[in-house]
Amino acid sequence: MELNQFVIEAAEVKSMAKESGMSVLQLLPSLVKSAQKLARPPISNYHVGAVGLSSDGRIFFGGNIEFPGLPLHHSIHAEQFLVTNAAIRGDIQLKYIAVSAAPCGHCRQFLQEIRGASEIMILITSTENGGGDHQDNDDSFRPVSSFLPHRFGPYDLLHNDVPLLLELHHNNLVFIEDEKNVICNGDVADHEKKLKCAAMEAANQSHAPYSLCPSGVALMDAKGRIYKGSYMESAAYNPSMGPVQAALVAYVAASGGGGFDKIVAAVLVEKEGALVVQDGTARLLLQSISPKCDFHVFRCRDSSSS
Amino acid sequence: MELNQFVIEAAEVKSMAKESGMSVLQLLPSLVKSAQKLARPPISNYHVGAVGLSSDGRIFFGGNIEFPGLPLHHSIHAEQFLVTNAAIRGDIQLKYIAVSAAPCGHCRQFLQEIRGASEIMILITSTENGGGDHQDNDDSFRPVSSFLPHRFGPYDLLHNDVPLLLELHHNNLVFIEDEKNVICNGDVADHEKKLKCAAMEAANQSHAPYSLCPSGVALMDAKGRIYKGSYMESAAYNPSMGPVQAALVAYVAASGGGGFDKIVAAVLVEKEGALVVQDGTARLLLQSISPKCDFHVFRCRDSSSS
Ligand SMILES: [Zn+2]
Ligand SMILES: [Zn+2]
Repeated sequence: MELNQFVIEAAEVKSMAKESGMSVLQLLPSLVKSAQKLARPPISNYHVGAVGLSSDGRIFFGGNIEFPGLPLHHSIHAEQFLVTNAAIRGDIQLKYIAVSAAPCGHCRQFLQEIRGASEIMILITSTENGGGDHQDNDDSFRPVSSFLPHRFGPYDLLHNDVPLLLELHHNNLVFIEDEKNVICNGDVADHEKKLKCAAMEAANQSHAPYSLCPSGVALMDAKGRIYKGSYMESAAYNPSMGPVQAALVAYVAASGGGGFDKIVAAVLVEKEGALVVQDGTARLLLQSISPKCDFHVFRCRDSSSS
Repeated sequence: MELNQFVIEAAEVKSMAKESGMSVLQLLPSLVKSAQKLARPPISNYHVGAVGLSSDGRIFFGGNIEFPGLPLHHSIHAEQFLVTNAAIRGDIQLKYIAVSAAPCGHCRQFLQEIRGASEIMILITSTENGGGDHQDNDDSFRPVSSFLPHRFGPYDLLHNDVPLLLELHHNNLVFIEDEKNVICNGDVADHEKKLKCAAMEAANQSHAPYSLCPSGVALMDAKGRIYKGSYMESAAYNPSMGPVQAALVAYVAASGGGGFDKIVAAVLVEKEGALVVQDGTARLLLQSISPKCDFHVFRCRDSSSS
């Protein structure tokens, strides 16, 4: 595996499959144990790993992350990690997912935000399965539609041309104080401005079609490296992925074993007067994982609707 | 309907069915529109109503509640309201649920916390349904198992004798400072102590078998009336219902149209040194809905494990 343990490029995937004598679809479940090792579940100690194959042949990893000292709704599930990790690469189609345990309802709902979610194929590798669902253990891929029949999702609420998760978003956000939208144009030299502009980029890519309250976060580590995350909304509200969580996925995926206490600065960009506000909760989470982290919030507005 | 718009007692259910010439199971969907009117969704304006029938013949109502100014994970779904409303009445079995829209994955997961969840029968009344799931509209009850096949839930993690949601819980909690466990025994005269002891009662009934971090909240309105709510955990973590949310269900169910700003005092009881901590988030939510609310936190310990 390459330096980034959370993505395998298409060429590498091919050569791994060749070497092992497996098809790429057989390779996926064989990597789930490696994905489980990347999880960080200090509350449950229940390591969930998810591995996804995109239409362009790349493989993405995801593990669950839990945050002691906070309510459980801050938790990031392996499937959400995987999707966020794929989202970082831009416009991508997820085709197959292998996961160590049956996806929970929260994740099945979150996956609905992807266009064509029903056709994503899921395989559960776990052989220990409660509840008598022994049909789970026949090592076959099943469509998401069979995991969430009679679904509720974007198609119930949005027009067909609204971009969904893993599609490109352009939210037309500009800083309130930046009438001419120049702050992030041209050379952004100093660290502070870089962080602010990275958070704005993340907010501009945020998926928030239900509340129309996009937001983004950028984190900086002690070495000045920046990690950004876009808020990703669910049609069912609660399964939405917070912008700090999304940025932490980028942090974990890029920096491997680094602890969250190495995050020294964070910026949140969100809309002024928004109905959905991340500020207080983002602060709570950041204080909990990195008490010395310097946190700033900047307000923005939608420049296309003024 | 009686004074409390969120419960209909068994005798009243029978006479309503008789008067209308419907069976009780036909009555359920006919009440969904009334449940929708009880919802408080200022963000989505999407009114979801749920109506449930228990084995003892009572009917419970639920509506969705949303909280502007916070992230969406604070939202209470109609099905969760319904279950919490039933939980207030103690040891109860839910048999049938009629709901205005397809339950989301978050709710399907939350319902797994009820023993025998798979056999609870659900009917969706909505005729407008996206995603081409037209089989939803044949007006029939379907088991929860058909909404969350290959489920993940309590049976994957707990022994069979651990109490589940809607079953009695006794968490053996006592206040840290209360060596002899006397604070809430005998006559609890003053309002402040009453509120504290109500929160302790709620914590003792909390369903937190995964983290072992039970908690409870009690709210007091301007008239000195007390409403309590127990934290209810989900095996999948994120769909857990916070203790403030649970207490707000009790408040809405008991006081009808009362605004949240009439809540003047609140107490949270949770375990000292717990891995899952409600404090900061409870404070954030209360400040948002009732800025002048007086909020206190008391720590407790498990007296059976010392
Ligand atoms: Zn999940
Ligand atoms: Zn729901």
